[in-house]
Amino acid sequence: MNTRMIVYMLGWILNTVAAMMLVPFMVSIYYHEDSGKYFLACALAMFTIGVLLIAKKPEDRAIYAREGYVITALSWLLLSVCGCLPFYLSKEIPGFTNSIFECISGFTTTGASILSSVEDLSHCMNFWRCFIQLIGGMGVLVFMLALIPLTGGQDLHLMRAESPGPSVGKLAPKVQKTAYYLYAIYFSLTALEIVCLVIAGMPLYDAVCTAFTTTSTGGFGVRNTSIGGYSPAIQYVVSVFLFFAGINYNFFFFLIIRRLKDAFSIQEVKMYVLIFVTSTLVITCNLKGSGLALEESFRYAFHQVGSIITTAGFSTADFDIWPALSKTILVLLMFIGGCAGSTSGGIKVSRILIYLKTFKKEMSQLCHPRNVKIIKVDDKPLAHNVLRSANVFLTAYLLVFVVSLLLVSVDGYDFTTNFTAVASAVGNIGPGLAEVGPTKNFDLFSDFSKYVLMFDMLAGRLEIFPLLVLMNPATWRKQ
Amino acid sequence: MNTRMIVYMLGWILNTVAAMMLVPFMVSIYYHEDSGKYFLACALAMFTIGVLLIAKKPEDRAIYAREGYVITALSWLLLSVCGCLPFYLSKEIPGFTNSIFECISGFTTTGASILSSVEDLSHCMNFWRCFIQLIGGMGVLVFMLALIPLTGGQDLHLMRAESPGPSVGKLAPKVQKTAYYLYAIYFSLTALEIVCLVIAGMPLYDAVCTAFTTTSTGGFGVRNTSIGGYSPAIQYVVSVFLFFAGINYNFFFFLIIRRLKDAFSIQEVKMYVLIFVTSTLVITCNLKGSGLALEESFRYAFHQVGSIITTAGFSTADFDIWPALSKTILVLLMFIGGCAGSTSGGIKVSRILIYLKTFKKEMSQLCHPRNVKIIKVDDKPLAHNVLRSANVFLTAYLLVFVVSLLLVSVDGYDFTTNFTAVASAVGNIGPGLAEVGPTKNFDLFSDFSKYVLMFDMLAGRLEIFPLLVLMNPATWRKQ
Repeated sequence: MNTRMIVYMLGWILNTVAAMMLVPFMVSIYYHEDSGKYFLACALAMFTIGVLLIAKKPEDRAIYAREGYVITALSWLLLSVCGCLPFYLSKEIPGFTNSIFECISGFTTTGASILSSVEDLSHCMNFWRCFIQLIGGMGVLVFMLALIPLTGGQDLHLMRAESPGPSVGKLAPKVQKTAYYLYAIYFSLTALEIVCLVIAGMPLYDAVCTAFTTTSTGGFGVRNTSIGGYSPAIQYVVSVFLFFAGINYNFFFFLIIRRLKDAFSIQEVKMYVLIFVTSTLVITCNLKGSGLALEESFRYAFHQVGSIITTAGFSTADFDIWPALSKTILVLLMFIGGCAGSTSGGIKVSRILIYLKTFKKEMSQLCHPRNVKIIKVDDKPLAHNVLRSANVFLTAYLLVFVVSLLLVSVDGYDFTTNFTAVASAVGNIGPGLAEVGPTKNFDLFSDFSKYVLMFDMLAGRLEIFPLLVLMNPATWRKQ
Repeated sequence: MNTRMIVYMLGWILNTVAAMMLVPFMVSIYYHEDSGKYFLACALAMFTIGVLLIAKKPEDRAIYAREGYVITALSWLLLSVCGCLPFYLSKEIPGFTNSIFECISGFTTTGASILSSVEDLSHCMNFWRCFIQLIGGMGVLVFMLALIPLTGGQDLHLMRAESPGPSVGKLAPKVQKTAYYLYAIYFSLTALEIVCLVIAGMPLYDAVCTAFTTTSTGGFGVRNTSIGGYSPAIQYVVSVFLFFAGINYNFFFFLIIRRLKDAFSIQEVKMYVLIFVTSTLVITCNLKGSGLALEESFRYAFHQVGSIITTAGFSTADFDIWPALSKTILVLLMFIGGCAGSTSGGIKVSRILIYLKTFKKEMSQLCHPRNVKIIKVDDKPLAHNVLRSANVFLTAYLLVFVVSLLLVSVDGYDFTTNFTAVASAVGNIGPGLAEVGPTKNFDLFSDFSKYVLMFDMLAGRLEIFPLLVLMNPATWRKQ
């Protein structure tokens, strides 16, 4: 294990967070808010430690798969602890457990909150909540990779550990270039949404924060009513950008370099659109049937499907009181998630596609055992190890889910609450149903359950394995 | 497709059901019950058709995997329709949908009922409900195989399609002999339980019916209070036999032929015992904590864990009002099920073992990609196709679960009800939670949902694939 290199990388993480904290500090100056001082103090402290850690470049900068997972897991733990300090020190969020819960919920783009009223926070704190979602969405390590060449050329191990999906789609031959393109598309989408939201009549501060948490599929809001308090026009803008946010970034990249045919033939994107449209239509009919007007039914359905499948977790209506069919669809979407190579969480559409294709192949082989078929995605045969790791991912996902469900149920709340709270945390969504429905929050859980849910959010964001590798004693054994 | 052979086999199924119906007919004579005439009439009608169908032996008696699945699926559909006729004609169960629901619930050993009071049924009808569980538990085709050589030596295709578990453990080189041994163990366990129950003070009729539905892990009862109305001694006897019923029959076979070391080294059985004991202890503590006495807590926990993990579905207490942790454990046990090669349903412990071993292997490979490890069960390396089919099984199981959950939720009941109703049907358990809890029944669902649940019960009993093969157009296409 290259410990020197791990420490060096963590030093860079500290410096990055320190730099990030200067942004809410500037917001606090604009709004003449006293609590901005905590950002400055934290930034200075982290910067001091960070500079010490990176003072001496490690001679051996080689990292392998194992280091990739460990660096990723430790970085995210460090981010969570550092990021929550302003909340904790300013006492705007009561207690350390709640502060770190809110911070992890932010970085992992879950969007679950323990606050009953976000409007009580100062502007700079609320801005920080949304800003960490922006950075967490595409990944801090990917951000660093885009800016500085850190490792001895094995950046892919980091990218693979931090990026969602069964395989890393490299947009360019070099990892640094790929990271750069990803962030370019990401920031462009965010900027475009800010413009659209302002045109639709949203105040600038709200527009910036909302755009941060839309394209990152985070789901934190600056209003207690989430998106429900804004005009229908604003709701539509957010919904459309949610729809974009769940799409594989390869699609946008192909669009930009004018390979339109390639863009529109990505099977995962087609399936994503199919699931999105079908769910929206069924819920629209279901809501219409329960007495709402057609436009309202469609607007709510479109927004909520987008919000849940991309795992953002905004809400425009209290879907906990919707008919059972609509609620069940939303719960299932929590597991599916958006495309791989997007900022969304969940199992990812590409894995669902792999499972369905494997299933179809097996069905045909049951009847005709001698016909050997090969599973193809986008006309390319699927490598055996991608298939294997997709299967293991499902096991790992279910395992984390089941153990967490058992632990959380010790608190004694009802099955629907526990089930959707855990599904929501592992899937990085935000709200669930019943006691953790869109009008409620996660404060009801015990500290123990909150830590379980924090683990789930991190495990979900990093696709389970980095955290497990970190905790596996075999990782730390000398070979 | 060897259609002649399929028809021939269905003829034998009809004859077998006809012969079976003579047993409740004799029960009706003993109790002087008028409704016995329906059994005689049905038996005669089926026998007439059955004899016509088997009149001409097919020249080509060869069957392959495809025919194996189709024969199995069609046999079970035929069984369900024929078996429900006495319920329907006698009007003791109101309507055809309810009659066939009760019958499928019986044959698949689910034990979910639409009856609010089983004590209103005549003795012969209640006996029939329990008797079809006995036959369904080990399988009708396996029963036929044990008695008559039907096919041209490819019985294994039938055995594989009807028997639970990822691979068929052959107890003897010949399939017929294996089927014979399985039924010998099965009937011996049942007979032993009848004796124990009578000694414990149960009336003979109750003891026979209860033993039928224990060793088959069916769970139908002849009292409205299930097992709860009997003495603690009887409850313990049933619980112990439930524990036995979930064990892989290879274990008993090894015991009988005195290969004790082999018997006690079966990994699946060890894991089954581990899950069983841990769940029982946790639930005991949980119930004790909620105010029950220690003996009572243990008795309820022992019984309910046995009842749910073996997918029988008896109850001695209303576990819907138990603490959340206990309920969550029970819901998870619904998915796990008993051992492969037993009469229980669910995903099966051996598959869970395979998933966990695959997960462990992958975890170690993440850190050390060059160490190639082989997955072993009982010291034998696991064949690639067993691993693959275990993974596909999980996908298929989840797929059937998810689609059914969506369809059933159209009725508009709450999430817990729908979730546990479907889990209970696919897992062949019986009761669920909330509106389908142990003191409730399945009559609240619409006819449409009842048919969905019937499909689930059959799919669960036949391990998903036979029914899907039957419905797959490719099966019927000429090659």
